[in-house]
Amino acid sequence: MILVVATVRLNPGRAADYETAVTEIMPRVREANPGILFYHAARSRDEADTYRVIEAYADQDAMDQHIGSESLQQSLAGLMPMIADIDIRIHDKVA
Amino acid sequence: MILVVATVRLNPGRAADYETAVTEIMPRVREANPGILFYHAARSRDEADTYRVIEAYADQDAMDQHIGSESLQQSLAGLMPMIADIDIRIHDKVA
Repeated sequence: MILVVATVRLNPGRAADYETAVTEIMPRVREANPGILFYHAARSRDEADTYRVIEAYADQDAMDQHIGSESLQQSLAGLMPMIADIDIRIHDKVA
Repeated sequence: MILVVATVRLNPGRAADYETAVTEIMPRVREANPGILFYHAARSRDEADTYRVIEAYADQDAMDQHIGSESLQQSLAGLMPMIADIDIRIHDKVA
């Protein structure tokens, strides 16, 4: 299993727009790829304008398929104007 | 759903000990609490001696029950000597 933590810091005032957008994107992504085991966007409780997208993939193929997908690229294009910074960390499951 | 990302930075040379310990702890934690939806330790690919424990709870009760459990306290006591720093971020699911 591969786990990804994407820390998303928004531009001020864009939280409502971001939440509306991910509410549409997340279910679509989960349904599009059976190799996606977990894929959720969540609001940090103690960091302003900060969200984390938590992702788990069955294997590297599933992750590569998702990253290369047309639908993800379109989703990201719509989100980027809201985003001030994004930090992506990739992990290999230990247990 | 509540999502927790715990970033664990180990003392140098303790990775093998940490991986051995979490390999025993993680399944036990998952089995102990039906409110735990996701609970895995994973090794960061591009940060030395860095792991993240990714956790998802059905609700606040499930999380509180886990945090207050005797077994978690015992597990943490065994892990702490290996750990240089730990950063815990709690999130509420958006989508």
